[in-house]
Amino acid sequence: MNDRIPVSVASLEKFSIALLTKAGLSRQDAATVTESLLSADLRGIGSHGVVRLTSYIGRVRAGVMELNPSMEVERESPASALLNARNGLGQIAGSKAMALAMDKAEVCGVGLVSVKNSNHFGIAAFFAMQALKRNMVGLVITNASPAIAPYGTKTPLTGTNPLAVAIPAAAERPIVLDMSTSVVARGKIRLASVIGEAIPLGWALDTDGKPTQDAKAALKGSMEPIGGPKGSGLSLIIDLLCGVLTGTSLTGEVKNVTDTSGPSKTSHMFIAINIGKFIDPEQFKQNIDAVIRRIKSLPSASGSPPYLPGEIEFNLEAKRRAEGIPLSPKVIAELQDLARKYGVTENIG
Amino acid sequence: MNDRIPVSVASLEKFSIALLTKAGLSRQDAATVTESLLSADLRGIGSHGVVRLTSYIGRVRAGVMELNPSMEVERESPASALLNARNGLGQIAGSKAMALAMDKAEVCGVGLVSVKNSNHFGIAAFFAMQALKRNMVGLVITNASPAIAPYGTKTPLTGTNPLAVAIPAAAERPIVLDMSTSVVARGKIRLASVIGEAIPLGWALDTDGKPTQDAKAALKGSMEPIGGPKGSGLSLIIDLLCGVLTGTSLTGEVKNVTDTSGPSKTSHMFIAINIGKFIDPEQFKQNIDAVIRRIKSLPSASGSPPYLPGEIEFNLEAKRRAEGIPLSPKVIAELQDLARKYGVTENIG
Repeated sequence: MNDRIPVSVASLEKFSIALLTKAGLSRQDAATVTESLLSADLRGIGSHGVVRLTSYIGRVRAGVMELNPSMEVERESPASALLNARNGLGQIAGSKAMALAMDKAEVCGVGLVSVKNSNHFGIAAFFAMQALKRNMVGLVITNASPAIAPYGTKTPLTGTNPLAVAIPAAAERPIVLDMSTSVVARGKIRLASVIGEAIPLGWALDTDGKPTQDAKAALKGSMEPIGGPKGSGLSLIIDLLCGVLTGTSLTGEVKNVTDTSGPSKTSHMFIAINIGKFIDPEQFKQNIDAVIRRIKSLPSASGSPPYLPGEIEFNLEAKRRAEGIPLSPKVIAELQDLARKYGVTENIG
Repeated sequence: MNDRIPVSVASLEKFSIALLTKAGLSRQDAATVTESLLSADLRGIGSHGVVRLTSYIGRVRAGVMELNPSMEVERESPASALLNARNGLGQIAGSKAMALAMDKAEVCGVGLVSVKNSNHFGIAAFFAMQALKRNMVGLVITNASPAIAPYGTKTPLTGTNPLAVAIPAAAERPIVLDMSTSVVARGKIRLASVIGEAIPLGWALDTDGKPTQDAKAALKGSMEPIGGPKGSGLSLIIDLLCGVLTGTSLTGEVKNVTDTSGPSKTSHMFIAINIGKFIDPEQFKQNIDAVIRRIKSLPSASGSPPYLPGEIEFNLEAKRRAEGIPLSPKVIAELQDLARKYGVTENIG
């Protein structure tokens, strides 16, 4: 980590927007995608940050992702919609879908928008948090490429399929849960494999479905779901509500972001709940504050004060907005290379 | 288990309806509550079955639960509603709420109904499965009395807060996930405590928030959530979406079913998703069948074929419908005693 170079948010933002517009996105779409990537970098989920620009553009150049498709609402009811992303960027589809879900919830109390034929959309929390400023609860799920084996099997079929929920507070910071259904992110195992370290039991299974501490065996096997059959079941449910409900894919058919043999067939679901249709939103937010304070005042199990879901990420975001986002020289070089190909004159940092 | 007496479903149903109508419920409400309790017994969740009749009626007699309150929809939007259960039975409120959510989803694509001032509602899957026959996905959450400590603390504050999702299939049986956010049910720890056995590490924490194998220490401490901060976060989110959104309680205030110091302050949320507003329902169900068959055909990790969420419960239900529900003589005696107090002439079995 010591060799990481801190890059200011403003500089990275300018660079990413310049690159994406040169690549062919509208200024607005480039800003949306950039905001999502920076949100991930700021919140400490670097695997879903600007490093993804290379793979996104790589997919477009390989002809397996569309940069500017005409996304279309194919089916619509008063509180629901099905958006066809037409193999465009997940961030653009996701922002449209979440906005539509909130518009529907404004009138109907709840809005649910599903997205078919999409791609990697970055971090789920990015969309869930869009509900906060409208006094709504945001709930987002997505499927992903195979990583978790259905319980009792040894073949990864469902993704780490995350679930994000954002709940607004008054004076306190919002509660933002963004969790995968696997025990840890696959990136942690990749890192252990690279540096040749063992991984703890409980993280992953080998190709025989047996617990392993060997990072390389784990990468060939599958990720351990949280709570055994519970996490594996949750991952399956999320896949069915995304892939099968939208008609995009059957379980096991989502392609990894590095697999350029065809469209990724990713799909998502966005739900907005309009708090004001249940309780006075100010009262609600005061009550969330009260709950947060109640939890913060509990005796600690570890010596350090307890963190609410999303709190560590908000702290990190504040720090990184002040000090810059640490990027490895390798990532910076890759991005600069990519930029040069598109005639981008901005430099990173 | 050998001393359990198998009781036929028909006999238990007749007994429970007789008892509940004598206690003061309408015939229809008695049938609803009975159907929920039997569903739990049939599916192997005996802790939520007819054994609960004693505690439900006990709460009514203690004056902390209402048998026949006038439940009222307090707020309503095209796709959402807030139902005040007025401290009545959770099963009655839940059935009304799920039916209303489905009616709303029929028109709006999705329906979301929250229930305030409710009580223990039995198993969440019972309501989620009501969506199946209407070609909908049912999603149900509820809060419960404190059992899980917010991550980093040692004080149980949130419940085991279950989540149930039911998804219809065509020729195959539906997929029904019904999971608590704790690693195991508290009943398993209670059983170990009674028979003096150690519990595995990973099930529970002692009052210092440290992992324990001592069942008695575990019962005084808290239940281990699935995936550490993930399960604990999910449990908190479910509490906020139930207790705080409905204005019923702040986190930590739901009373245990045996605590007769006041109303339990339980609350729930019911969501119905109308499949036909996204994709042809027959196509959807065929695709769910295809996914089920794909999973069933995977190589097994254990030697036995993999089970889909809910499959073990459906198998058990078929067996128990044929062979009867095994009840302990103690539970039968308690129920007969209760029945005599109300002048019920039916016997169990």
